[in-house]
Amino acid sequence: MIIREATPKDLDAIWDLILGLAEYEKASDQVKTTKEQIGKSLFEEDVAKCHVAEIDGEVIGIAQWFLNYSTWTGVPGIYLEDLFVKPEFRGKGAGLALMKELARICVAKGYARFQWWVLDWNEPSINFYKKLGAVPMDEWTVYRLSGEALEKFAR
Amino acid sequence: MIIREATPKDLDAIWDLILGLAEYEKASDQVKTTKEQIGKSLFEEDVAKCHVAEIDGEVIGIAQWFLNYSTWTGVPGIYLEDLFVKPEFRGKGAGLALMKELARICVAKGYARFQWWVLDWNEPSINFYKKLGAVPMDEWTVYRLSGEALEKFAR
Repeated sequence: MIIREATPKDLDAIWDLILGLAEYEKASDQVKTTKEQIGKSLFEEDVAKCHVAEIDGEVIGIAQWFLNYSTWTGVPGIYLEDLFVKPEFRGKGAGLALMKELARICVAKGYARFQWWVLDWNEPSINFYKKLGAVPMDEWTVYRLSGEALEKFAR
Repeated sequence: MIIREATPKDLDAIWDLILGLAEYEKASDQVKTTKEQIGKSLFEEDVAKCHVAEIDGEVIGIAQWFLNYSTWTGVPGIYLEDLFVKPEFRGKGAGLALMKELARICVAKGYARFQWWVLDWNEPSINFYKKLGAVPMDEWTVYRLSGEALEKFAR
């Protein structure tokens, strides 16, 4: 298995995995973007980053991430937005290898925190993450302003 | 009251407000950085951004933020890391004005989401955010890998 940074040639595979994750999260209707837009974000605008897991030339998993920032540590961190491995390739350690690569980048660059969020009902993932040493930030809740509420408030 | 992007001249005031917020959140011991490092992040490396609220030439509030990214929307969003107003200047609408400015930036740039997180015991803030139209992402929990656990996992 190879873990590497994504290239524009991976776009079709990345898009399929993004849709696969949305379906798994029961949120396919929330995917409001296009493959082309994702390609632009990853490979032109550099607002998002992606690593892939490859087996025999096939991309079977992705970790899509970006840099966040903590005022208390004074340095960036990695925020993992999407982690998904094709169901038929589960159990081969692809998810673990992708997580390890991002952790290595954190340590190499001096980033203080590696973070992501998980749906509270997603127990298999929660157990996986806890085994890695990750800690749930139970005291905190993310608030979101979007859509019409965002536009209304901005006026 | 003036709302504007921070400049290097605001660094002393920004640092005081960062320490003020940490104290309010009962987390002063978690501030592991320095004023100089914050200045570098904001004004040299551009990994974090800051808006300030000013009254009579005095910086009395800050909103420190960065760009995040959503795979489902395909565009960046604003993540508000710190919002803090000096206690003696509360109730004058500085927090609201800072939030509104960031919401305006979202709408102007086509960013889909304006997000931040809140300590679950911080009821005054939660009520304030709900009034703005923000929605708690109750189904999700952030997980964090940091410090020794991060280094251990990366090895």
